[in-house]
Amino acid sequence: MEVQATAESVSPTQQAGAQRRIVIYDTTLRDGAQAEGLSFAAADKLKIARRLDELGVHYVEGGYPGSNPKDQEFFRLAQDIDWKNITITAFGSTRHKSTSVENDPGVKALIGTGTRAVCIVGKAWDHHVSAVLDTTLENNLAMISETIAYLKRHGLEVFFDAEHFFDGYRASPEYAMAALRAAQEAGADCLVLCDTNGGSVPNDVRSVTRRVVAEFDVPIGIHAHNDADLATANTLTAVESGASHVQGTVNGVGERCGNANLCTVIPNLQLKLGHSAIKSDQLQHLSDVARFVSEIANMALNPFMPYVGHSAFAHKAGYHADGMAKSQIAYQHIDPALVGNEMRVLISELSGRSSVLSRAERLGLRLSRQSEDLHGLVEEIKDLEQRGFQFEGAEASFELLIKRRQPNYTPPFSLLDFLVLVETRGGRSILSEATVKIQVGDEVQHTAAEGNGPVNALDTAMRKALVSAYPQLERVRLMDYKVRVLDESSATRAGVRVMIESTNGHSEWSTVGSSTNIIEASYSALADSLEYAILVTDR
Amino acid sequence: MEVQATAESVSPTQQAGAQRRIVIYDTTLRDGAQAEGLSFAAADKLKIARRLDELGVHYVEGGYPGSNPKDQEFFRLAQDIDWKNITITAFGSTRHKSTSVENDPGVKALIGTGTRAVCIVGKAWDHHVSAVLDTTLENNLAMISETIAYLKRHGLEVFFDAEHFFDGYRASPEYAMAALRAAQEAGADCLVLCDTNGGSVPNDVRSVTRRVVAEFDVPIGIHAHNDADLATANTLTAVESGASHVQGTVNGVGERCGNANLCTVIPNLQLKLGHSAIKSDQLQHLSDVARFVSEIANMALNPFMPYVGHSAFAHKAGYHADGMAKSQIAYQHIDPALVGNEMRVLISELSGRSSVLSRAERLGLRLSRQSEDLHGLVEEIKDLEQRGFQFEGAEASFELLIKRRQPNYTPPFSLLDFLVLVETRGGRSILSEATVKIQVGDEVQHTAAEGNGPVNALDTAMRKALVSAYPQLERVRLMDYKVRVLDESSATRAGVRVMIESTNGHSEWSTVGSSTNIIEASYSALADSLEYAILVTDR
Repeated sequence: MEVQATAESVSPTQQAGAQRRIVIYDTTLRDGAQAEGLSFAAADKLKIARRLDELGVHYVEGGYPGSNPKDQEFFRLAQDIDWKNITITAFGSTRHKSTSVENDPGVKALIGTGTRAVCIVGKAWDHHVSAVLDTTLENNLAMISETIAYLKRHGLEVFFDAEHFFDGYRASPEYAMAALRAAQEAGADCLVLCDTNGGSVPNDVRSVTRRVVAEFDVPIGIHAHNDADLATANTLTAVESGASHVQGTVNGVGERCGNANLCTVIPNLQLKLGHSAIKSDQLQHLSDVARFVSEIANMALNPFMPYVGHSAFAHKAGYHADGMAKSQIAYQHIDPALVGNEMRVLISELSGRSSVLSRAERLGLRLSRQSEDLHGLVEEIKDLEQRGFQFEGAEASFELLIKRRQPNYTPPFSLLDFLVLVETRGGRSILSEATVKIQVGDEVQHTAAEGNGPVNALDTAMRKALVSAYPQLERVRLMDYKVRVLDESSATRAGVRVMIESTNGHSEWSTVGSSTNIIEASYSALADSLEYAILVTDR
Repeated sequence: MEVQATAESVSPTQQAGAQRRIVIYDTTLRDGAQAEGLSFAAADKLKIARRLDELGVHYVEGGYPGSNPKDQEFFRLAQDIDWKNITITAFGSTRHKSTSVENDPGVKALIGTGTRAVCIVGKAWDHHVSAVLDTTLENNLAMISETIAYLKRHGLEVFFDAEHFFDGYRASPEYAMAALRAAQEAGADCLVLCDTNGGSVPNDVRSVTRRVVAEFDVPIGIHAHNDADLATANTLTAVESGASHVQGTVNGVGERCGNANLCTVIPNLQLKLGHSAIKSDQLQHLSDVARFVSEIANMALNPFMPYVGHSAFAHKAGYHADGMAKSQIAYQHIDPALVGNEMRVLISELSGRSSVLSRAERLGLRLSRQSEDLHGLVEEIKDLEQRGFQFEGAEASFELLIKRRQPNYTPPFSLLDFLVLVETRGGRSILSEATVKIQVGDEVQHTAAEGNGPVNALDTAMRKALVSAYPQLERVRLMDYKVRVLDESSATRAGVRVMIESTNGHSEWSTVGSSTNIIEASYSALADSLEYAILVTDR
């Protein structure tokens, strides 16, 4: 692996301004999934891995197969994909204290994933070995050594996550170093110093990392948590102290206060410290990836998040915005385009013309930059976005917006009325029913259906009304239905955004609807999905 | 790396362990109010100032009277209060480039506030002086000098915010230092180095702050912004480099990505670096203050915020929670009680008996490990989790589960029937209506309400039915409403989980509901929330 080899050749006492190649190891899907309220289905994980592959990070840790059998599904699916940039990695721990490594079910599960890289966590804090693991200090070293040696014999690239390394070093530097030595001697390809409790400060990280870099011959990594609001700083400090491998998660998701945030670490490494990790055209996807992962995770992206947040380059009216007009560099630390974000002056929003244009291009739709039509489209999108729509990840709805503006476009159907009813009476089980009146050409279809919830009833009734005119809808299936509450603090008065993914067996498409009324939002996304289904099967 | 190389060997002030007294200067009400979506009424500002006074910070910057006439109202109200700890401070800028300081309306407004301390912002970046201010470098120095000297003659304590100091220093160290010198010579009591664009990294902050501390005789301050996710680290670095005055905001609110977050800076200064700022019993109010300010600001407190967030000390089941039970210090960087927060062991399907038990204990509910009751409770939780409930983060629903199993428990109300209806006809706008029949004691309440969506209509109808029997429900407000689609690939037939967070102004609680029917899931979470509200106000 040439990336690691370059890192290896860097002198132990990093020179000022020395630009180095930094390996990015993403653990959104494993450690990130420990965040409260977060859980990813295997299909979600695959979608995120694809985006990370495009972003150009180097390793994607997919899960912990020994602890979570569901993760095996992800590894099975990931094997069939031809990844451009990433190496899929499986996470596991050292063998059980009283099981031989050959018979350890966790180690077996790791090998069973078929990945060519694995990451092994082992204990580096003597207190943990005795108080939590309840074994001897010697046995813990043997567990590290035997597990890594065994996996190396299987031809795998092996990372060693030294759990609680900084706390362990404070308690017993000798033991913490002995744990690393055991890993190195067993053949580990990289020793990762973990600030598992997230409470270390940069001064500690600096002195400890320097010593480790000076005393070991393999690349050194850093895995920081954000419990003291210092995960980014600790990661940069470790890199400046000679580490060349960085672990983190998209948007900093993770247990408690989260992991080091790759969305701020990567631009800092590249734009502030001059190191290289991903290509500059890949870096321009950063804001998109941040948004995408927050959508999949169903967690609103913190608007104030550095670099990628919606407000990160937003300037309020007043003396700053005035200054902005006079000098672009006056109030921005970087050009937001470098990370795919944009400047917003909050009094008068600048047009998203070029992003609409490039999105249209990506869909193979031709729009001219000067056209009246583009102007109108941008205005319409802005208006819809104001109302909670979001076309990132809802390409079919976006394509329909463009199609509907074409003068010769006739919508395949139009909704006249609907009624949705949910009730329970006298202790009977709950009933959901929908009636719809839909016009197709000159015909009006008026029908009704039950469902196991109001949205399902509406979905069923709409299909029933349309299928005689459009028999191709028989094959259409909704694959995914997501609800996202916008402005959650408005509670039940808040707007909701519904995202639907559909398939007809050949292709897949995504649509969006938004309203303060979940039924209306769902109707809007369903109607787009069915309209798109009719169009794609027509061409 | 020059700067790093000297890190351990420089001046005595920077040595680890040198405990110093750090002055905390809060600018939540002025610079914090620049956050997108944030605006404080004068009464809000007063409430926040009172909490900051209790917290024991030293200065509270109340506003910018020269730029915002509304701020004068706050200063007028603040004059009548007998503050225990804080000095109210007014913010302003140097005199206009072509007005004498005596006639400058902004300077007049400052003096008119009646505060005994003021903070003056002036330019320290040559580029800004010519490109934004459009005046000569000499005149800018005169503006700094004359403004400060004038305010000193009025007997005020004067802080000087050197705007863009770090960017200015990079462009022209001589000019940046000249701006500070002008301020010091005019009598400024403190020179505050501002990273206005928030793009500086700790190495820059360290070397620049050290030089300034060495060359000037007055206290040096730091004012950091978070655009590179480094505001906390930059603030700590400046303090370690000799700064003794720290500016920041509660929860890090502020323009773009926000200001340095006092909720993470203060505990880091005290608990990690050993400096003193506020008393340890005051520090225990930190989480309360964070929550209070987020309430007033109407911005949900980021649950993942270090130290004060709801998830900051939350541990998921699995090997961590297992470790937690064995060793408290194993997975927490500090005792959460030090900052008024608490540890939470999240209930989830992975956790069995012992986590249910410890959860119950934390809620002050007694369950014996051997009891039949504990067995039944664990079984009930498992069954509900199978149906999509999740008690992680829904403590109130969890507590109700236990309460309802007690033989003497009488539910405060029970639902007999409900009907929810959503319709649109003949192009009219969508209508949502709910009817509910609820029994309270011997009375049956049958009523109806509209809403801007079906869940809001149901919520409104339920409160309407209950409020005559339980007037305390008037004060209950839903803060947060989240919908999560489970098994999204089942599309509109999928189960949904609804999580609701509520408050009565004193405490907050979370409830959960789950069903394939979103209305039923919402009803279940709403009913738990209202039942819990009645119970907590009863005790």
